Amino acid sequence: MSYDSNNAFAKILRGDLPCVKVAEDDATCAIMGLMPQADGHVLVIPKEPVAQIFELSGASAIACMRMTQRIAIAVRDALQADGVFIGQFNGSAAGQTVAHVHFHVIPRWEGVALSLHAREIADVATLEAFAQRIRERLV
Amino acid sequence: MSYDSNNAFAKILRGDLPCVKVAEDDATCAIMGLMPQADGHVLVIPKEPVAQIFELSGASAIACMRMTQRIAIAVRDALQADGVFIGQFNGSAAGQTVAHVHFHVIPRWEGVALSLHAREIADVATLEAFAQRIRERLV
Repeated sequence: MSYDSNNAFAKILRGDLPCVKVAEDDATCAIMGLMPQADGHVLVIPKEPVAQIFELSGASAIACMRMTQRIAIAVRDALQADGVFIGQFNGSAAGQTVAHVHFHVIPRWEGVALSLHAREIADVATLEAFAQRIRERLV
Repeated sequence: MSYDSNNAFAKILRGDLPCVKVAEDDATCAIMGLMPQADGHVLVIPKEPVAQIFELSGASAIACMRMTQRIAIAVRDALQADGVFIGQFNGSAAGQTVAHVHFHVIPRWEGVALSLHAREIADVATLEAFAQRIRERLV
């Protein structure tokens, strides 16, 4: 899959679009999902400009795994979640809506259904409040 | 979450239950899902005995990522998939049905819905045929 540098995450990574950042390291950025499927839905994004996991370098894949695991723990603790879903979708057939690799980290609670993917835009102040709680739990 | 060494994947890893193996390395094992949500559904399982990603060691997490990426590419090529879903569920609230960390790698095609999780047991000969096609594409 060819990479289009005008996708939303490319714009966020180069500062052309705003985001609510949770964490960042040399190779990845973790941001609040703008169209969350649950409270505390975070996206982990490699800085490497690739559309799908098939093309991701080994180093970026490892960095994504490390950040995803850190975020999963912090999200669980900050949101007092019963469980955490981690999903990484490649291709529109698999539910991918932005053509830059990303890992969804979504807290789950017993009896609470997920919202539909990529439907409603959340309030930024609400996202910032969740981000702050997650940052405080990051190890 | 405490670890129960009588879960199905622990039994498979120590040879007490059969499986259709796709690949193995020092730290992980990739097997065909016995109750697939799509043709070519593979599970990547760390050998480390932990229930959820929160407790997984960094080394095991990296090994899982490496194997998952290899499997995703091979599954895409072997099954001529339009996309690939990667999912890792922690806790029953997130859809986890076996209490040992595992990564789902599921090929997707436009217009083909997923089967429900953990419902129907597949025919072993069919799984073996898919496994063979995936093994031939493994890099």
